[in-house]
Amino acid sequence: MPANFASTETVQKLLDRASGLDVEGGNPRLKAIMRDLLQATADIIVKHDISESEFWQAARYLADGAGEIGLIIPGIGLEHFLDLYMDAKDAEAGLTGGTPRTIEGPLYVAGAPLVDGTTEVDLTSDPDDTDTLHMTGTVTGPDGEPVQDVILHVWHANSQGWYSHFDPTREQTPFNNRRRIKLPADGRYAFRSKMPHGYSVPPGGATDVLMQALGRHGNRPAHVHFFVEAPGYRTLTTQINFGDDPFAADDFAFGTREGLLPVPSRQGDTAHIAFDFRLQRARTDADQTFSLRTRAQG
Amino acid sequence: MPANFASTETVQKLLDRASGLDVEGGNPRLKAIMRDLLQATADIIVKHDISESEFWQAARYLADGAGEIGLIIPGIGLEHFLDLYMDAKDAEAGLTGGTPRTIEGPLYVAGAPLVDGTTEVDLTSDPDDTDTLHMTGTVTGPDGEPVQDVILHVWHANSQGWYSHFDPTREQTPFNNRRRIKLPADGRYAFRSKMPHGYSVPPGGATDVLMQALGRHGNRPAHVHFFVEAPGYRTLTTQINFGDDPFAADDFAFGTREGLLPVPSRQGDTAHIAFDFRLQRARTDADQTFSLRTRAQG
Repeated sequence: MPANFASTETVQKLLDRASGLDVEGGNPRLKAIMRDLLQATADIIVKHDISESEFWQAARYLADGAGEIGLIIPGIGLEHFLDLYMDAKDAEAGLTGGTPRTIEGPLYVAGAPLVDGTTEVDLTSDPDDTDTLHMTGTVTGPDGEPVQDVILHVWHANSQGWYSHFDPTREQTPFNNRRRIKLPADGRYAFRSKMPHGYSVPPGGATDVLMQALGRHGNRPAHVHFFVEAPGYRTLTTQINFGDDPFAADDFAFGTREGLLPVPSRQGDTAHIAFDFRLQRARTDADQTFSLRTRAQG
Repeated sequence: MPANFASTETVQKLLDRASGLDVEGGNPRLKAIMRDLLQATADIIVKHDISESEFWQAARYLADGAGEIGLIIPGIGLEHFLDLYMDAKDAEAGLTGGTPRTIEGPLYVAGAPLVDGTTEVDLTSDPDDTDTLHMTGTVTGPDGEPVQDVILHVWHANSQGWYSHFDPTREQTPFNNRRRIKLPADGRYAFRSKMPHGYSVPPGGATDVLMQALGRHGNRPAHVHFFVEAPGYRTLTTQINFGDDPFAADDFAFGTREGLLPVPSRQGDTAHIAFDFRLQRARTDADQTFSLRTRAQG
């Protein structure tokens, strides 16, 4: 097998043309990225001597698995890689401190009720016969100051590991376990909900097929997602995973991080988690926005 | 930006785990390929400083474009790259000669009528008021011997550039312009059809969006597809493109090749193309099969 085949002039010319490098017009940044993606693909085909049949099986996997791309990407570590990369850029810019970011996942739904957080907020009204979760804490800035006008977005699974809006049993009310909480001036929050359960990727689905082929599993520990936004501060995407969950140290999505693994304090059928958020100050308007990821709309 | 970031120990460990390298079980070949794919992706993210928003836009493109993956892959040159790579491996194995292979494309439909080719075969019965195409030629082996028991699969677009089974106008009868022709012992074939027209990728579809972003177009010249199979010979996937088509030298799918660009001989409302196929001998059973690509079933 010709090991340097992907570097031959014939192939180089093909990939230049395929990336639009020989024509005017189009997006120069996309052309350059496409050129590198094509070279990397060609190199990998040659290195592993990938057959026509293997190539088309991979193409079919991508096409059939399109509906699960939001699970596949964290499953193969790329969503966490993006977090690590953003952390590294922050560190280089001297931007350290604050609650760590971690993956958003594919299950946020925009448009959850915006509720007043001056008293404890109920996230659920569903009749779910399971333990109660109380979560409390503060949102402060770099100097420990209470952050004003915080909106805390909270979303989590139910006791079966299902998220409202994505629940195949259709047993959840709209926006169950989803709220946007407007915090009072002291930056304190408190909400009551039902204890979430971890979940596994859909059995037999594209993510499951891939994980099994890699000798891996598709389980996440129980967790609660957050966006934290406030004027003048950097928007934070994070989540806490339960430190005592069997998958706390083996999350298929690589979403668990040091500092984000509180152990619920359990007493009878009630569990309490105390967790404080610390935000960075915004340097730019962009710091106060969300990524342009496509999100479901409730 | 930390240029070597994707090579740091943290990232290396993440990509090892994501590929299942730290666990038993699974498919070792897939693990090794996945590891290289992830490294290449991480390298490209860092090299181009790809933002979270750009990354998710690309993910959305892949998900939304899944239905056109069979057009995107030839459009970005990868289907032709596979042909070039197989050619290079053949050359290294001393396997030269015969009609060149070229891309199959996504529009074959299995199960076309198997017809007797002792007299000229009609590929179409549709009332299409356009020029007639006659194609004739022979199928021989490496020593010029007529190949016995050839099945010649033919498929092409109609005068509007649409393929039956994939025609949004629904104006074509099933298997219009599609036949499997069983050739007589002299290896000669002859069929009559209507002149096909080149096509462009669906306007506004994922392939079109990508081609425009690369400053490219999405047009193919008029062409006729073939599979040629016969016991004892290597199955051939090829196509002829019309040498006088405006896109003959600028096929967006890179399917045109030297030796596969006959110019139709036109007389009034009839065109004739003479084209002879030469097959290689099969060395293995695998040489007498098709790739495991997913194909439509009529």
